[in-house]
Amino acid sequence: MKLTSVKSEIIEDQVAVNSLSERLRRGEVMSANCPSREVLSHITSRWGVLILIALGDGTMRFSELRRKISGVSEKMLAQTLQALEADGFIDRISYPVVPPHVEYTLTPMGVEVQVQLTGLTDWVENNLYRIMQKRQSAK
Amino acid sequence: MKLTSVKSEIIEDQVAVNSLSERLRRGEVMSANCPSREVLSHITSRWGVLILIALGDGTMRFSELRRKISGVSEKMLAQTLQALEADGFIDRISYPVVPPHVEYTLTPMGVEVQVQLTGLTDWVENNLYRIMQKRQSAK
Repeated sequence: MKLTSVKSEIIEDQVAVNSLSERLRRGEVMSANCPSREVLSHITSRWGVLILIALGDGTMRFSELRRKISGVSEKMLAQTLQALEADGFIDRISYPVVPPHVEYTLTPMGVEVQVQLTGLTDWVENNLYRIMQKRQSAK
Repeated sequence: MKLTSVKSEIIEDQVAVNSLSERLRRGEVMSANCPSREVLSHITSRWGVLILIALGDGTMRFSELRRKISGVSEKMLAQTLQALEADGFIDRISYPVVPPHVEYTLTPMGVEVQVQLTGLTDWVENNLYRIMQKRQSAK
């Protein structure tokens, strides 16, 4: 009887641990305190989306990214690159030469996100006329 | 000879008109002045993403949306719903009853966007542990 009780406690503990690790492993964007919200906000920030899409074409230098993404300031580009690097979506490669040469490239995880984002931006670009028509007719 | 010249002018005009309408029809998110940037910012705003995802489960009342999307204020929910309605992603259905009963639902265009966004948020939720591991190891 005692053994059964101990066993059942162990099983209960195991279930608790499993569901805790499950909760920690899988994010829940609808939950205000889940860190997935912060990651999502880095990816979907105004410049985050465009940086990840731009790097989909291949490795780029800072100045190339700035030219490609029209309207971004140096400060915002640097800040957003840093956040995306910390999340593991971008690698920053610095070559020890004079003058300094720094390149940015998508990590394998960054490529996975970029594929999802490209689906979204392609949709917006291809369907912009429908959205503009809708706005016109609503006036 | 004169006729050929006129003909070639007509063809050139036609090409110019076509490429102009093509440019107007298809958005270009890398371009600062393209309206696709604004549409993208509505869709990818903190609450925009979550509203579109939440409505993927079906029609909802304002109070239901507020409960589902933890952390959103009444003001931000109302503002974001309005922007998404103006873009044609959401229908606001108001029933003439007392007390007032208002429901929100995805339009067919909204469903198309929601499919793209779900791909993105599913990826973030499923891969959160990889991102958290990366952040830990960077400390």
